[in-house]
Amino acid sequence: MQSLEPYTAGEQPKDKKYIKLNTNENPYEPTPALQDALKNARSLRLYPDPLAAEFCEAAGKANGLPADHVFAGNGSDEVLALAFKAFFDSPVLFADITYSFYPVFCEFFKIEFLLVPLRDDFTLDAAGFLKPNGGVAIANPNAPTGITLELKELQTILDYNLARKRVVLIDEAYVAFGAESAAKLIPQYPNLVVVRTLSKSHALAGMRLGYALAQPHLIEGLRMAKDSFNSYPVDSLAQAAGTAALRDAAYYEGVLSRVVDTRTWFVRALTEMGFRVLPSKTNFVFAGHDRIKAAELFKRLRDRGVLVRYFDAPRVRDFLRITIGTDEDMQKVAAILQEILS
Amino acid sequence: MQSLEPYTAGEQPKDKKYIKLNTNENPYEPTPALQDALKNARSLRLYPDPLAAEFCEAAGKANGLPADHVFAGNGSDEVLALAFKAFFDSPVLFADITYSFYPVFCEFFKIEFLLVPLRDDFTLDAAGFLKPNGGVAIANPNAPTGITLELKELQTILDYNLARKRVVLIDEAYVAFGAESAAKLIPQYPNLVVVRTLSKSHALAGMRLGYALAQPHLIEGLRMAKDSFNSYPVDSLAQAAGTAALRDAAYYEGVLSRVVDTRTWFVRALTEMGFRVLPSKTNFVFAGHDRIKAAELFKRLRDRGVLVRYFDAPRVRDFLRITIGTDEDMQKVAAILQEILS
Repeated sequence: MQSLEPYTAGEQPKDKKYIKLNTNENPYEPTPALQDALKNARSLRLYPDPLAAEFCEAAGKANGLPADHVFAGNGSDEVLALAFKAFFDSPVLFADITYSFYPVFCEFFKIEFLLVPLRDDFTLDAAGFLKPNGGVAIANPNAPTGITLELKELQTILDYNLARKRVVLIDEAYVAFGAESAAKLIPQYPNLVVVRTLSKSHALAGMRLGYALAQPHLIEGLRMAKDSFNSYPVDSLAQAAGTAALRDAAYYEGVLSRVVDTRTWFVRALTEMGFRVLPSKTNFVFAGHDRIKAAELFKRLRDRGVLVRYFDAPRVRDFLRITIGTDEDMQKVAAILQEILS
Repeated sequence: MQSLEPYTAGEQPKDKKYIKLNTNENPYEPTPALQDALKNARSLRLYPDPLAAEFCEAAGKANGLPADHVFAGNGSDEVLALAFKAFFDSPVLFADITYSFYPVFCEFFKIEFLLVPLRDDFTLDAAGFLKPNGGVAIANPNAPTGITLELKELQTILDYNLARKRVVLIDEAYVAFGAESAAKLIPQYPNLVVVRTLSKSHALAGMRLGYALAQPHLIEGLRMAKDSFNSYPVDSLAQAAGTAALRDAAYYEGVLSRVVDTRTWFVRALTEMGFRVLPSKTNFVFAGHDRIKAAELFKRLRDRGVLVRYFDAPRVRDFLRITIGTDEDMQKVAAILQEILS
């Protein structure tokens, strides 16, 4: 066994009831339409469709792409892992502050990586990615900062790597909360892979569903990698639930706009309390305060029944990542923060 | 992308209605108790329990082991893949005829392997495994032969490798259909990993559930590997369904004995028709006939609406692997075979 340094997910507490704002779950339930879909799913004694064709059809439609541009996986983490294996050589480029699973995938598959520093204001410096590489991974919006890179800037990275036949992977886990998707660039860029999850936008974290969008030759690469690890990664109930969710765009527009509205006033409230809040296009905010260390604030919130995420790492240890919950929960959190600060 | 030679699963046909005996699915439905379990599963908007604690508790209990001796995964293929990564160095030893995913995992993780030939009668030669290695993988009962290795012989392999601190992985996908499990040896052997699936024995192929049994230090190794690939591999509905299934031993005793009874008369019928049938302790038989080539028989069965599995590979291309279905289905298959042969 190599000494892998594994990814640490946000805790799933069992000791008491928390306002749980630490793993970016959606505060609203998934579409009620999925109950019927679950009832009508194929018999569980049979293997699932290994390619999840119906789900891919629905995911394609939701993004204006044909089904052969879609690959389904057991959560976007699995899709990302398989993409790292399928497309990347040493060294992979990604930001110094981004989804902390990327270096773990590299370690798992023995791929070297190079970190590209974010600017001082935590925006992504596209120019820093214009260097020889074995593949590029960018979370857009980025996590845990919540900050978005404009597609125009992303295209400079895509163009550079297109000429060198290198894959650029855009991880859009949070794109539905207000950012612009790179999916529309797929017809132009045979080197672009866009990865999505239904965990946050579709309130289906418990169902483990993610997918990749790309031109068919890249989808084929992902399928080959899947068939070298687990032929049937997405179970029949997950396929049914995900398909129903992707088809009910109207329901999710309502859910997403509620989360965005809550984020808007919560950011304002934090700012009025003197927090520095990075501009978020996600279902979380990344915020810090001059008067109290983030680690200390994390503990005090926990003591008061509010669970948020703190990363004890260079450049980000002055911030907390706070998931946007319901209006009611966020009002409570705002009141508790006010109390701690006064 | 390395040129991986991926695993090929049995086809999931869509063109017409077949008697489907090609992927070793259970012909009976899973326990009705899982309907309630699915209804009471945790809200899908929340991430699943990353360690599937309740499921591990139930799997441990079903095998007389504590929950900390259990690791849960998204099907036994995922559990096997993570075990290859966590425990094996070059070269891994496995039989020349066995589950064809093993060499694929090796290729995926860049581990070399050595094949140990089965004897002419397709039994496993334990002595062939007593050589320096980076880990041993044995399917017991073996697939696609269906033949079982006695635990006493397995212990010679375990002892040899215990002295050399090498892991021996026993893949017991089919053990519930009449073979003896190595799980009882786990307290004695800190180098033993037993892998199980609920796909066949528990009629839950569609739900993707597998688990490993081992001493806690090995379980910890599997958890580290999981957290380097996908933190939450088993979704909340799968955890709920699997737990309910493992708790309903009485229901599954009935299912398993029906399959075994069907196998008994079907083997007799095949033998009477002049087939050579290897002695099976699984839910499939591996059989060939002197008078007709297996490849030809495969096609003729397919034309008549019966789907079985044919492997065009050295030593096994004279055989078909036929899953045991319901009595009704197997009676039809026996009649069709009779007709083809006459």
